[in-house]
Amino acid sequence: MKATLMYGAGDVRVDTVPDPIIHFPTDALVRTIRACVCGSDLHPYHDMPAREHGRSMGHELIAVVEEVGPEVRHIKKGDFVIAPFAFQDNTCEFCREGLQTNCPHGGFYGTPEAAGLQAELARIPLADGSLVVIPDINPDTADDSLLASFLSLSDVYLTGHHAAFKGSVSPGKTVTVIGDGAVGLSAVLASRQMGAERIILMGRHRDRTDLGVEWGATDVVSTRGDEGIAEVMALTNGEGSHVVLEAVGHMPAYEQAYGIVRPGGVISRVGVPQYESAPIGFGSLFGKNASLTGGPAPVRAYLESALTQVLNGEINPGKVFDLSLPLIDAPAAYTAMDSRTALKVMLTP
Amino acid sequence: MKATLMYGAGDVRVDTVPDPIIHFPTDALVRTIRACVCGSDLHPYHDMPAREHGRSMGHELIAVVEEVGPEVRHIKKGDFVIAPFAFQDNTCEFCREGLQTNCPHGGFYGTPEAAGLQAELARIPLADGSLVVIPDINPDTADDSLLASFLSLSDVYLTGHHAAFKGSVSPGKTVTVIGDGAVGLSAVLASRQMGAERIILMGRHRDRTDLGVEWGATDVVSTRGDEGIAEVMALTNGEGSHVVLEAVGHMPAYEQAYGIVRPGGVISRVGVPQYESAPIGFGSLFGKNASLTGGPAPVRAYLESALTQVLNGEINPGKVFDLSLPLIDAPAAYTAMDSRTALKVMLTP
Repeated sequence: MKATLMYGAGDVRVDTVPDPIIHFPTDALVRTIRACVCGSDLHPYHDMPAREHGRSMGHELIAVVEEVGPEVRHIKKGDFVIAPFAFQDNTCEFCREGLQTNCPHGGFYGTPEAAGLQAELARIPLADGSLVVIPDINPDTADDSLLASFLSLSDVYLTGHHAAFKGSVSPGKTVTVIGDGAVGLSAVLASRQMGAERIILMGRHRDRTDLGVEWGATDVVSTRGDEGIAEVMALTNGEGSHVVLEAVGHMPAYEQAYGIVRPGGVISRVGVPQYESAPIGFGSLFGKNASLTGGPAPVRAYLESALTQVLNGEINPGKVFDLSLPLIDAPAAYTAMDSRTALKVMLTP
Repeated sequence: MKATLMYGAGDVRVDTVPDPIIHFPTDALVRTIRACVCGSDLHPYHDMPAREHGRSMGHELIAVVEEVGPEVRHIKKGDFVIAPFAFQDNTCEFCREGLQTNCPHGGFYGTPEAAGLQAELARIPLADGSLVVIPDINPDTADDSLLASFLSLSDVYLTGHHAAFKGSVSPGKTVTVIGDGAVGLSAVLASRQMGAERIILMGRHRDRTDLGVEWGATDVVSTRGDEGIAEVMALTNGEGSHVVLEAVGHMPAYEQAYGIVRPGGVISRVGVPQYESAPIGFGSLFGKNASLTGGPAPVRAYLESALTQVLNGEINPGKVFDLSLPLIDAPAAYTAMDSRTALKVMLTP
């Protein structure tokens, strides 16, 4: 089958690799309907050292089940499914608490445990816990915009939702979203769903912030750093923002976050931090009694209810996909996202 | 009057200084009944550069009101009062939200805005917002242990309470308290009040941890660093602690905190951080979806209800005071706390 591999920074190739097989009796094999490239895939695209054997890429997928292992009970051949970006048993204590990305039996794609999902076929571990069936939709005849919204539930929209959820977004609170990438825009949409009335979107790309405004952003701040902080402070009567959703992962975004968070407020991060240490002392978080939260989204916890919203036409999170390419053109998808000519690229085998 | 000044690391003196006067019409002047030394006073005691003019010390006080400014409405001459360690108007938007340590009109003692409280007399800014009356108690005849409990509401007990409150301590959660100083022990007592059944206390001083056990600690871990982390993980089935209350402020305590926090758990800090940057990336907080919270306790928000508990005999937080000295011996009080021969020292003018 065809699969996307990264051989080093800027070096993505679609190679022919062996088809996956059932390894464990709880696995499923699925045939990809749509996959896509994530903002987090761009981090190794910028700095991964060159290697002889490519790294298997991708962790977002909608697919049709081809085969299930003998211990798979609920997922069946022919099911049209969404795969959350992490796999999990969805039955353990952590999963029952909505901490599926910390499931002790779970893991991530593109690792030795499970190949990446930018491929024609995929092996899904713990299939009963890791796949969610899309009912009553034929993937071969469904509208592409609907497929895009299903695919967004694999990661991007529900990562934005996780930011808002962990930030305790609620009516009456001012929410500032840092980053106009696909996750930031999703965080705007999710914040609106959770009742936020004032949503400040910090982003510099007009075509992107326009979608943010469509989804509920009430203010757009296109400046950054100290200037951006001053602008948000001015918009909030000098108080700062009750909730800051940081959807980038780079240090300047975090610095903006603690610069604008209101005393007693919360910074919720979902951009994978590209740093380990950062300011959290008296001058940044402590003096303000500000909280810091966030992490890898337990997409599985939120998936059914968001799927219902998509099926009912209440939300259209698939609008973050502004380019669709054949899987074979995955390298061009990375280039387009890296150069910001595309917001998020869908791949079709 | 006599007041305590710090001239540099290890150099504390009790000097004669001018009596305070009413500066602003909202001020009150009070005569000290008891003051005390805080663990946070030991930070400059360790590292403050020598200076010609001493730094005015102290921020904890119970006192009797001697005089009030013309705009003070509720506090009266003769009232027996507790002064929270920060002053505030207690009427603004932030104060009404329970964020009194972020009151835009408030501030801290031992600063250019207000002298320290380890003194015979003190000027209390914004007296109506900053003083809480202790009803029906004569300070001259009250039992010393009762006075100690009143004094503990000025800072130490309610700082421990703030840690537990921000950490969302509740029944069913495992709470680990890092630090067997007066704040750590107070955090144990507060956690018990909030319903925690499993309370692990990390501390190495048996006489202190004994008080922690009396107050509700179910386990004591006397090791530190990787060894201490391993011990807490073993006590929690390898999962970690839902809530970690960090009552020290030094980096090793924070490192312990993220080492033992359970996925989805929360670290609540009330020890003033003696660092600005620290690990918060994937390997420490983010990967676990752990939260970080805490800051200077808005003691004023919690004071009335804790005072009721003290008056009813439900809690005895004054037990953290294990040494009482005359104010004139404040230097010996610092020495005793620094050498850990005393847990917390009360000063009597």
